[in-house]
Amino acid sequence: MRIGVLTGGGDCPGLNAVIRAVVRKGIEVYGHEVVGFLNGWRGPVEGQVRPLGLDDVEDILTRGGTVLRSSRTNPYKIDGGVERIRENLARYGVDALVAIGGEDTLGVARRLVDEGIGVVGVPKTIDNDLSATDYTFGFDTAVHIATEAIDRLRTTAESHHRALVVEVMGRHAGWIALHSGLAGGANVILVPERPFSVAKVCEWVRRRFEREYAPIIVVAEGAVPEGGAEVLQTGETDAFGHVRLGGVGTWLADELAARTGKESRAVVLGHTQRGGTPTAYDRVLATRFGLHAVDAVHEGDFGVMVALRGTEITRVKLAEATAELKTVPLERYAEAEVFFG
Amino acid sequence: MRIGVLTGGGDCPGLNAVIRAVVRKGIEVYGHEVVGFLNGWRGPVEGQVRPLGLDDVEDILTRGGTVLRSSRTNPYKIDGGVERIRENLARYGVDALVAIGGEDTLGVARRLVDEGIGVVGVPKTIDNDLSATDYTFGFDTAVHIATEAIDRLRTTAESHHRALVVEVMGRHAGWIALHSGLAGGANVILVPERPFSVAKVCEWVRRRFEREYAPIIVVAEGAVPEGGAEVLQTGETDAFGHVRLGGVGTWLADELAARTGKESRAVVLGHTQRGGTPTAYDRVLATRFGLHAVDAVHEGDFGVMVALRGTEITRVKLAEATAELKTVPLERYAEAEVFFG
Amino acid sequence: MRIGVLTGGGDCPGLNAVIRAVVRKGIEVYGHEVVGFLNGWRGPVEGQVRPLGLDDVEDILTRGGTVLRSSRTNPYKIDGGVERIRENLARYGVDALVAIGGEDTLGVARRLVDEGIGVVGVPKTIDNDLSATDYTFGFDTAVHIATEAIDRLRTTAESHHRALVVEVMGRHAGWIALHSGLAGGANVILVPERPFSVAKVCEWVRRRFEREYAPIIVVAEGAVPEGGAEVLQTGETDAFGHVRLGGVGTWLADELAARTGKESRAVVLGHTQRGGTPTAYDRVLATRFGLHAVDAVHEGDFGVMVALRGTEITRVKLAEATAELKTVPLERYAEAEVFFG
Amino acid sequence: MRIGVLTGGGDCPGLNAVIRAVVRKGIEVYGHEVVGFLNGWRGPVEGQVRPLGLDDVEDILTRGGTVLRSSRTNPYKIDGGVERIRENLARYGVDALVAIGGEDTLGVARRLVDEGIGVVGVPKTIDNDLSATDYTFGFDTAVHIATEAIDRLRTTAESHHRALVVEVMGRHAGWIALHSGLAGGANVILVPERPFSVAKVCEWVRRRFEREYAPIIVVAEGAVPEGGAEVLQTGETDAFGHVRLGGVGTWLADELAARTGKESRAVVLGHTQRGGTPTAYDRVLATRFGLHAVDAVHEGDFGVMVALRGTEITRVKLAEATAELKTVPLERYAEAEVFFG
Repeated sequence: MRIGVLTGGGDCPGLNAVIRAVVRKGIEVYGHEVVGFLNGWRGPVEGQVRPLGLDDVEDILTRGGTVLRSSRTNPYKIDGGVERIRENLARYGVDALVAIGGEDTLGVARRLVDEGIGVVGVPKTIDNDLSATDYTFGFDTAVHIATEAIDRLRTTAESHHRALVVEVMGRHAGWIALHSGLAGGANVILVPERPFSVAKVCEWVRRRFEREYAPIIVVAEGAVPEGGAEVLQTGETDAFGHVRLGGVGTWLADELAARTGKESRAVVLGHTQRGGTPTAYDRVLATRFGLHAVDAVHEGDFGVMVALRGTEITRVKLAEATAELKTVPLERYAEAEVFFG
Repeated sequence: MRIGVLTGGGDCPGLNAVIRAVVRKGIEVYGHEVVGFLNGWRGPVEGQVRPLGLDDVEDILTRGGTVLRSSRTNPYKIDGGVERIRENLARYGVDALVAIGGEDTLGVARRLVDEGIGVVGVPKTIDNDLSATDYTFGFDTAVHIATEAIDRLRTTAESHHRALVVEVMGRHAGWIALHSGLAGGANVILVPERPFSVAKVCEWVRRRFEREYAPIIVVAEGAVPEGGAEVLQTGETDAFGHVRLGGVGTWLADELAARTGKESRAVVLGHTQRGGTPTAYDRVLATRFGLHAVDAVHEGDFGVMVALRGTEITRVKLAEATAELKTVPLERYAEAEVFFG
Repeated sequence: MRIGVLTGGGDCPGLNAVIRAVVRKGIEVYGHEVVGFLNGWRGPVEGQVRPLGLDDVEDILTRGGTVLRSSRTNPYKIDGGVERIRENLARYGVDALVAIGGEDTLGVARRLVDEGIGVVGVPKTIDNDLSATDYTFGFDTAVHIATEAIDRLRTTAESHHRALVVEVMGRHAGWIALHSGLAGGANVILVPERPFSVAKVCEWVRRRFEREYAPIIVVAEGAVPEGGAEVLQTGETDAFGHVRLGGVGTWLADELAARTGKESRAVVLGHTQRGGTPTAYDRVLATRFGLHAVDAVHEGDFGVMVALRGTEITRVKLAEATAELKTVPLERYAEAEVFFG
Repeated sequence: MRIGVLTGGGDCPGLNAVIRAVVRKGIEVYGHEVVGFLNGWRGPVEGQVRPLGLDDVEDILTRGGTVLRSSRTNPYKIDGGVERIRENLARYGVDALVAIGGEDTLGVARRLVDEGIGVVGVPKTIDNDLSATDYTFGFDTAVHIATEAIDRLRTTAESHHRALVVEVMGRHAGWIALHSGLAGGANVILVPERPFSVAKVCEWVRRRFEREYAPIIVVAEGAVPEGGAEVLQTGETDAFGHVRLGGVGTWLADELAARTGKESRAVVLGHTQRGGTPTAYDRVLATRFGLHAVDAVHEGDFGVMVALRGTEITRVKLAEATAELKTVPLERYAEAEVFFG
């Protein structure tokens, strides 16, 4: 049997750990061959392929990103895309695929399975917003990096009696903000799931200053003030003629300064959250995902995605896996509110 | 209501996060008072107590160890120990206790509950060997530190074509060895649950050298060779007249050198694994444990321990909580064997 | 003798290590008393003072920021500022001051010495731009943090074939950019000392992509394109009616994308570079500065600043110390150019 | 011109940064070719050689160890060793060598230069004990790792009221103990340069406990108690019939426990100190050493070693470079004593 692997969508610490596990177990336990398709779905569409032997994965466990590179190519948006995948699988003798990616990548996987191509999915979302799995790899690393940044920023805030706003990843789900905020001891946490009241944030900030401490506000990039995202518009237009949105972090720091009269600064963590060596947690989770994915391929159990439930790796139908966004529930957010102000 | 908190047994990153959460929610949400008993169960026995207000816990989230200090005192081994606890609770007006600790500490808690004292338990075991909870705080930090050490040792091993044996914590359960070994890409992992064959280890080591790489062997301190622990005896006797056991790591490095003719070195990570700032994962878990423990106290739901199941914090009876050691199951060990050699 | 300590200007990892060393040696070796003035020069002006005993500095070595807090107050811009300092020193029985700060703080120190007040300076500039000392504490920590970020960003750049622009601190001197760029293996480094040609940067970027790698560009916040800073103007005006400057990092990423057709992203590290626990290097340097400053005070050698020359701590006149900005010399920049493209 | 590079002796973080800089500048600036000899001096003796192009060094800057591997081979202890080096240099068309190593490696380099072979040296000693240079790369990384360990151990010591002895590298010079001890806030630092009095150490330890803190003792592996190293003998004999020395760390912890009655534990950091990714400081220093070494080769200035003096890279004669061990001077040790107890 020859198994193809590919990684799609945004990069994420742990992708290489998955690849390594697939190769190692595929070859050593099952005696299969493994090849890598490059650049996400573009690989099978355009026939970009390379062999993956034991030596190729010897040194990649600790590395961020993906040695197979990635893209956002969608074969269903390319003329004859699916047909070309089918041809290339035949040409390179590939019997089945392990597709590692997020909603888009797995959505393609699901449709390909319906058309008779054997695919097993591995979930990848640094935002932790897939409902079918307790956690995805990359999330712990992102939280770790954001927490380290908050730890560092606290001493600056205290030394200067300043408010510091830290903008973290999370366009639709506030998991990174919630966890790094809890771990970093944030004094306010704002998530996309709950439009926030600037007045209320100011109250927490003032209370913090009154207690002679300096406030740290952690805000997900997708959080919006009451009144909606249009509040964040900068007045400029982008290349497509849309009015640009300013970052919520910078906007909020300006608002806090104006309303409380206290110095306020914003830091936007950006891409530093998704790169570099994965945490031990993510390496273990990604490795286990890879091992279980290759089991499913070996058994011919296509159309499933591996998932974490408690401490067990299970399989869920791809169709269910991508059905629903996992957002921060109210009671989890309420837990964190205990620490506000 | 006045709630007392104490920490017992070996220290563990995350203890302070639990304390902080109990204080914060106890005071801010429920309007209770909180005091800390010092040095584990010795505190309530001897009346060592200090107030715990919001300012006392302002700065402790990121710190390792426990600001309440710890001990292994068992009130059931002290004449009138339980009576003195009862008196001191009365004297200081303490209505209920949150006891943070491992098997021993929680065992005492369970018996005190039977005698009518209100206690809620929070599980603490860096070894992750409590069956009633998916994970305990401190474990992720220990795995993180051990993994970092393995990452560092790998380059030395490769540069000198040497075998490196890394001894990690885990007297009865091999969880730290298993997870750090998987995360660090260890070429052999040895756990207390499975007596190991030195001949088999040598095979993996040789195979690794033949592939022109250098082997890393991760061994739990409690792992024993086939033939049993007496193999590790050094011939010396300790202060109690018992024949000393040498460390398994050093012993194994010597054996590997003798049998394979390859340079082999041992590193014993020791106490570095249990100190210092907790990982983000452990800070979040410990914080949630603290929040839920104070909920249980507030509701008068004594005799329970908070526990993690999947992503939820639940409560389990203290009696069940400490009944069984959670060891590494065979199938989890088998997962890791894919990477041996 | 009673010695006062204060910290002025922007915070910097290592300030607490200086304070601790002054207290420890002042008390234990010389038998003096030590007090801390709060909030930089505002402390002596307004009489904000607290005792500093051994216990107060027990736990601060590893902490970022300053337990004495800081400000940018200049007593020479306050009516009767110097007189009030004189009065407060008398009121609190303070015989001499250790002033830890940058150009502004030390400039005040120099003038106070001329007026008969005993002050010894300790240099503090995270940008490493004081010519009288080889290095200042805080710089190594900033370089360490920026390098870690670059390490993380590289895997993202490679996985997506993207250019990544990393904006680091350095308004007038490019030391942080130079050192973190060298340490992180940057493919272009831009410093304030040399206006850069965007065309030339594009060449390096293209060459990098042609070699099938992704470029990392490290740019100091004060670097300007040929044509001058006005190129960076955003068209908006700030609260003072000045036209705002956009960040050079974001501007450059946009330019690169437009000119090379390659995806380009900017990350602005901002305040994360100046906070948190100092590196071992900075803790040692700051500690030695503190020890030598208290020696100078004890000897009555006022009007000097401690400085690092090679491996030795020496004293230089405050007047010389603040005379000249230390910028990156051409030959050091040329060293780094070897790695461009 | 074709330049050969080799790395000898114990591995050290930064070796790969030197190699990369030699290759990059040798090829890009001077248009030379570069090859790597494997396994230290064994490479040129046995003709183990590989080409080193730009792509070979693209990814090695951040890696610990050495991609050229290392050995302790001494060509002067091999029959015809020097002749074989001469032949292999001729066979592979190598005109000159860059030899990166410590006292032994550079001693060989010096003798080869006397016999007409062109060699430029790059100093490598993790212990920082070469008198001709202010610092060597690898030292800062070792100090960083030891300091991190001390930071972690402190919380355990405090939580349990225990003395913790941390044994760090340094057989003949105490630099790592001194710097990591200062950076970690050690309460006693013991170095090979000064035989220590156990009674005196006990005093400091007792004083520390009396102040209600827990002591951390940092001891270099080569430190010896008054009375001499034989005190450390274990009674066992090693393979060569010599009586074994026990580690000073473990010995001291036992002594402290026996004499003070306080729990005491030892941690031996061992090889973790010399592996893994170099600090930013070491990457910059190693890179600059490499750049300047290839300059010397290009100019035909053989028989020299590059060295750091202040902030400048200079050249010193190999003969002087290896003449004298740089030990910790009394006054530097006295600086640290301020913090004892």
